[in-house]
Amino acid sequence: MEAATTRIVPGSGVCTLINIFTVAPERQAELVRLLEEATEEVMRHLPGFISANLHRNVEGTRVANYAQWESREHFEAMLRNPQAQVHMRAAAALVEKFEPHLYEVVSTHARA
Amino acid sequence: MEAATTRIVPGSGVCTLINIFTVAPERQAELVRLLEEATEEVMRHLPGFISANLHRNVEGTRVANYAQWESREHFEAMLRNPQAQVHMRAAAALVEKFEPHLYEVVSTHARA
Repeated sequence: MEAATTRIVPGSGVCTLINIFTVAPERQAELVRLLEEATEEVMRHLPGFISANLHRNVEGTRVANYAQWESREHFEAMLRNPQAQVHMRAAAALVEKFEPHLYEVVSTHARA
Repeated sequence: MEAATTRIVPGSGVCTLINIFTVAPERQAELVRLLEEATEEVMRHLPGFISANLHRNVEGTRVANYAQWESREHFEAMLRNPQAQVHMRAAAALVEKFEPHLYEVVSTHARA
């Protein structure tokens, strides 16, 4: 687990993936472990990967991945990567659903 | 619109709100404007607010807010704030649905 600090900056051209996983509470920890392994072993070594940030909710029912890729094309190439597909299938088998969408940052707002 | 850089750090105790809005494409721009106004005029002045980051998807069908609060209690106090409620009702009227959930950061991963 590498220390890292994701910075959110508008207009950077970064392609942001926000993936919300819905999961049974007894499987949340296992899902987090699986996503951490997938990110460390495969995702972070792929071209265009910038960062990933895993989040869990207190209720145990959700995991969110906030990830940054250099471009949509890099993200789509990852989807076709056989090693990545093994991990994605394992995650899909653990969860009720997952909702990945790609975004661009529009604006950021700091405390007054 | 204040320049700001959100930093995602595990173990900071920050309470992360990820709110995914589903919206008709012809209303996405209006929703972004409304959320920007709400954040600038109300949210960022409230106790415990750290940052908000608005994202839109290219397809026009979603807006995501990645926001940081000092604690769940600060976030819940915002929900009871009458000024904030005016903006939240206006946003709710524009969208098909919104799915706000609170998270803690588990781990971050940088490129290899």
